[in-house]
Amino acid sequence: MCEANVYLIDKEGKEQLILESVDKVIPSEEGVLLENIFSQRKTVKAKIKEMALVDHRIVLEDL
Amino acid sequence: MCEANVYLIDKEGKEQLILESVDKVIPSEEGVLLENIFSQRKTVKAKIKEMALVDHRIVLEDL
Repeated sequence: MCEANVYLIDKEGKEQLILESVDKVIPSEEGVLLENIFSQRKTVKAKIKEMALVDHRIVLEDL
Repeated sequence: MCEANVYLIDKEGKEQLILESVDKVIPSEEGVLLENIFSQRKTVKAKIKEMALVDHRIVLEDL
């Protein structure tokens, strides 16, 4: 499976794991909607900073 | 491998394949930088509309 782990990076550069095994990522004006393969959903007030899919890694940063 | 194919959707809803086997996706003010597993790079004047990683699918839309 090709899901990714989603991390939120703060202003000091520290990363926090937000949601594992994420399949769907939908950005919007209010933030980013995440849905993982277990149908868990989270909306994070952030934007996408970078994604490295081969490393299963998506990094968000505060809006 | 868990790379994805990146499509650009136009205002009529038609999709065009932009780059295959994409590993890295980095959004910026000017658009989205894509890099695939063959080190090919493309910058597209677009924003991320949605991603479905299990389907290896990223959809961009015009800025």
